[in-house]
Amino acid sequence: MIVVKVGGAEGIDLDAFARDVASLRAAGERLVVVHGGSAETNRIAARLGRPPRFVTSPSGMTSRYTDRETLEIFEMVYCGKVNKGLVERLRRLGVDAIGLSGIDGGLLTGRRKATVRSVEDGRTIVLHDDHTGTVERVNAPLLELLLTNGYLPVVSPPAISDDGVAINVDGDRAAARIAAALGAHTLLLLSNVPGLLRDVADERSLVPGFALADLEAYAPLAAGRMRMKLLGAQEALRTGVERVVLGDARSATCVTRALAGDGTVITNA
Amino acid sequence: MIVVKVGGAEGIDLDAFARDVASLRAAGERLVVVHGGSAETNRIAARLGRPPRFVTSPSGMTSRYTDRETLEIFEMVYCGKVNKGLVERLRRLGVDAIGLSGIDGGLLTGRRKATVRSVEDGRTIVLHDDHTGTVERVNAPLLELLLTNGYLPVVSPPAISDDGVAINVDGDRAAARIAAALGAHTLLLLSNVPGLLRDVADERSLVPGFALADLEAYAPLAAGRMRMKLLGAQEALRTGVERVVLGDARSATCVTRALAGDGTVITNA
Repeated sequence: MIVVKVGGAEGIDLDAFARDVASLRAAGERLVVVHGGSAETNRIAARLGRPPRFVTSPSGMTSRYTDRETLEIFEMVYCGKVNKGLVERLRRLGVDAIGLSGIDGGLLTGRRKATVRSVEDGRTIVLHDDHTGTVERVNAPLLELLLTNGYLPVVSPPAISDDGVAINVDGDRAAARIAAALGAHTLLLLSNVPGLLRDVADERSLVPGFALADLEAYAPLAAGRMRMKLLGAQEALRTGVERVVLGDARSATCVTRALAGDGTVITNA
Repeated sequence: MIVVKVGGAEGIDLDAFARDVASLRAAGERLVVVHGGSAETNRIAARLGRPPRFVTSPSGMTSRYTDRETLEIFEMVYCGKVNKGLVERLRRLGVDAIGLSGIDGGLLTGRRKATVRSVEDGRTIVLHDDHTGTVERVNAPLLELLLTNGYLPVVSPPAISDDGVAINVDGDRAAARIAAALGAHTLLLLSNVPGLLRDVADERSLVPGFALADLEAYAPLAAGRMRMKLLGAQEALRTGVERVVLGDARSATCVTRALAGDGTVITNA
């Protein structure tokens, strides 16, 4: 079992991604796909007059501030446009794909943040009405039910809180939870960079790999979104996944290449 | 088994609808929900600078013209905002709801119209790049799989064509196909009118009911969207559904009331 998360940043070709997934499925690989949609969400939000608002936590993590209207725009793009577009592409290639958000069937449940602390101009302020949170549980039997019946699940945030409120969650960490819950041996986190870089300005400075035990030494190299990927990798490897590959989604055979070890390979050995 | 289609026109309260569905589920009723989203789609399309374009066929049916961008707006609203919002509401009420579009798992498949003929200013013109079509098959085993495992399917257009292209389909007729495929005894088509009216300007002019054999006599009363509902009712009743109720979605207990016969009741007797 392999869980593949494909990002939603600029430069990612979902047509090529779908072709590569279809060829792996045809070769008998068991797969679950998780996707993002950030760039398209930013475009649609801007067109709707609701440009994204990013907040930086006191610990330096950057995330999208998600009030109710922002959550609904997020759902429109992730669960509507991107998820259905990807399922359509896969079906056209003969893959029996089925799209699900984390809300559906309680697939991804967890905790909603009561408040969000944001550092703005050096001061920490507290924001309310935020619809973000963290995935704590995966409805693995639902995914197993679909896989057993020949379907390829294509999963999108948001998740849903224990009291039944939709929450925006990080897609990389959601994919890590899914990989752990399904007992996947490999988790691929594909985005628009080649992997973890020693110098973010130089794509040739790729870190080829390291063991989980050495993660602390490499963590300082990660900035922005890459920090969340390392956190997801750590969570997955600590809960039974054998290998996480931070790979490049911009090539025509991105899944196959990441599976072959192209990217930053982190192992639990 | 009951299939309930709730419309997406103005004046429909999805909070109340969800509460009524939850109470029926708690009473042990087996249900599948199908929903619309037209009013919200019109609002979002206008905000995105893509107001809807309606076409009238030579036979007088009115439908939305759906090029690729319009289809994607439709997916965003129907599959994203409305479907996830309804699943979220139901889950908050303790119902194990799962949202699916007709694309997912090939739930609703059918034929794409090669071209659309539109009457404009008295002339018939031919439109290309239209993403509309008709549902011909329902993946009933997928719905049965979910129902058997305790889930309540919440279904949204679009469907997918046999060659793998997403197609906008009529929700009432899709619900009719689903009801027939599942062997449902009752199909409820709920919208923002009390049912079939003798005078569309007078809500007290409700036609209380008739048998399928008399449908031709009542068909001339139907205008606009109501024509599609009668067509759906006819298709459902001809394929094994015992009773179709055209009911009012604007009351707090709309599903319970329609089940009790409040609306226009059409039977296959």
